[in-house]
Amino acid sequence: MSVIYKRVSLIGLGLIAGSMALAMRRAGLAGEITGYARSAETRDTAREIGLCDRICDSAAEAAKDADLVVLCVPVGAMEAVARDIAPVLKPGATVSDVGSVKRTVIEAVSPHIPDGVHFIPAHPLAGTEHSGPRSGFAELFDNRFCILVPQPDSDRAAVDSLAALWRGMGANVDEMDADHHDLVLAVTSHTPHLIAYTMVGVADDLRRVTDSEVIKYSAAGFRDFTRIAASDPTMWRDVFLNNKDATLEILGRFTEELFALQRAIRQGDGDHLFDYFTHTRAIRRGIIDAGQDTDAPDFGRAKAQKG
Amino acid sequence: MSVIYKRVSLIGLGLIAGSMALAMRRAGLAGEITGYARSAETRDTAREIGLCDRICDSAAEAAKDADLVVLCVPVGAMEAVARDIAPVLKPGATVSDVGSVKRTVIEAVSPHIPDGVHFIPAHPLAGTEHSGPRSGFAELFDNRFCILVPQPDSDRAAVDSLAALWRGMGANVDEMDADHHDLVLAVTSHTPHLIAYTMVGVADDLRRVTDSEVIKYSAAGFRDFTRIAASDPTMWRDVFLNNKDATLEILGRFTEELFALQRAIRQGDGDHLFDYFTHTRAIRRGIIDAGQDTDAPDFGRAKAQKG
Ligand SMILES: NC(=O)c1ccc[n+]([C@@H]2O[C@H](COP(=O)([O-])OP(=O)(O)OC[C@H]3O[C@@H](n4cnc5c(N)ncnc54)[C@H](OP(=O)(O)O)[C@@H]3O)[C@@H](O)[C@H]2O)c1
Ligand SMILES: NC(=O)c1ccc[n+]([C@@H]2O[C@H](COP(=O)([O-])OP(=O)(O)OC[C@H]3O[C@@H](n4cnc5c(N)ncnc54)[C@H](OP(=O)(O)O)[C@@H]3O)[C@@H](O)[C@H]2O)c1
Repeated sequence: MSVIYKRVSLIGLGLIAGSMALAMRRAGLAGEITGYARSAETRDTAREIGLCDRICDSAAEAAKDADLVVLCVPVGAMEAVARDIAPVLKPGATVSDVGSVKRTVIEAVSPHIPDGVHFIPAHPLAGTEHSGPRSGFAELFDNRFCILVPQPDSDRAAVDSLAALWRGMGANVDEMDADHHDLVLAVTSHTPHLIAYTMVGVADDLRRVTDSEVIKYSAAGFRDFTRIAASDPTMWRDVFLNNKDATLEILGRFTEELFALQRAIRQGDGDHLFDYFTHTRAIRRGIIDAGQDTDAPDFGRAKAQKG
Repeated sequence: MSVIYKRVSLIGLGLIAGSMALAMRRAGLAGEITGYARSAETRDTAREIGLCDRICDSAAEAAKDADLVVLCVPVGAMEAVARDIAPVLKPGATVSDVGSVKRTVIEAVSPHIPDGVHFIPAHPLAGTEHSGPRSGFAELFDNRFCILVPQPDSDRAAVDSLAALWRGMGANVDEMDADHHDLVLAVTSHTPHLIAYTMVGVADDLRRVTDSEVIKYSAAGFRDFTRIAASDPTMWRDVFLNNKDATLEILGRFTEELFALQRAIRQGDGDHLFDYFTHTRAIRRGIIDAGQDTDAPDFGRAKAQKG
């Protein structure tokens, strides 16, 4: 593939930025990649492993002269970073982000974008529970979706270039409205994470079952929950603070349905339970048919292995 | 390893029985293995793939002359099967089961066990979301726990033989009281499954997000939930009907904690969220250190692959 942006700047050097750097290199999509992270420690690690061509000591230095700047920091840090880089953005450049919430990021970042610079929010639907500069891998986005959220005044050519970059990194690209994005993600990602965190917390709090028992006997199901609940606390705090309305709506529906199942258990209504459990199976089938997961015992994850 | 039981009879020929047959063969633990399943279809499949040495057309025929009979049917079917085989059980034989709930199974099965026959309930903490005679694999129990629930009058030598069988099939063996077992499993398995079923049901019900969107954009987290929620409806209906008290207790605690997190989101209390999410991470660490899962991106599942 050929170079899409001469210079790409990644602000934040964790799982997502690291994977982007490796995926861009794999396909030769960027002439030069610069990077910046808040802590000297992360910057040193990034230098040590050669994550970018150049690691800078300020966001502005990294963003200077870039054709594409991607904000890869937690959602709550987007505004501060946008403010830092605004003065150096060159006309015609594109600013994007990878935040897991879109409406509040747009509200926080847009006011800082100078005239003549394109702001095109994005969100790759791919991740693991790991974080930091060493956690990235080039295959993270392969066959996953990246959702672009163009703004009403977005330049079509700029959107197309960004879409080409994500396709070049292995992703399928879709476009969506910010509010719809936030609702879909509240269902498919944010609320499930909150629930997993809660269940793991309950297990830990139960005095009559010791921690070591919880750990020793954690069967399938719970093990998956603990993995989800091991995700980065800062990232997830910011997600819930910033996708408040949609998450609260889905949580309301969730507790409503859970109470109905709870009543069925209390009343011994086996038919209700059986029908409910039969119904949810079909959704799994759909996900496998859509190629988003596999039926194999390793659930297709070997493919995403670091190497 | 050497033969522990001359003749083992498996009643029910699904994931667990199938995996037991393969694991017993792998280590040469049984002289002959007989099997029975309710439907002619399952029995034919079992014959076709050579799952046991002999597939019988009634539970009594399969259990006749057996030194060990293992009930591998859904929890709600245990009593009927126990009644069927009771007349043919030979003195000195052991009856065991693999049900996911122990108190109600003991209450249902014990009255049917003749004098001179040992009843030693068990539960291997291993499974997948697949079921049926083709879903078993020899490695399912490797490095997992099998919990034995000996009764007050259990013969020590009989318990030791059953423990040796499970160790021979790759499992670590522990003993536990029935009520404690049911509480521990309500935390580590039953409630997580109910929650996963519920979340998948909510996703399916939400009119403003289409099914195809849920499927297409199902990110990590939700994908795991759909896998859990694809488990066998009969098995799980029986689990909840039979582990009612413990499940309802854990569900009560779960909703209490969930409401606290929900309020933190509503009030924008980022510190509460951050602290909660940080705390749950430690449990994951413990599970990895205990060797129950791995930190690798394929989560150790490749090991459990069918071959
Ligand atoms: N992980 C996922 O599953 C996933 C999936 C899709 C999208 N996302 C989104 O992608 C973004 C990054 O996530 P990630 O998983 O890559 O996170 P990560 O691995 O934790 O990396 C975050 C990076 O942001 C930097 N950073 C944090 N706070 C900052 C601040 N106030 N100013 C400047 N830099 C700061 C960190 O620097 P230090 O190391 O120096 O602290 C680190 O380099 C988030 O918005 C998240 O919502 C995540
Ligand atoms: N799956 C897990 O994750 C897991 C883990 C640990 C323990 N367990 C426990 O293990 C037991 C079996 O589970 P499994 O996963 O192996 O189930 P499975 O794959 O669905 O197999 C169940 C077997 O039981 C037979 N059966 C069902 N109802 C019966 C009845 N009324 N009379 C006689 N046979 C009947 C079925 O026969 P047909 O095929 O002819 O219907 C089938 O052969 C359950 O008690 C479950 O709680 C399951």
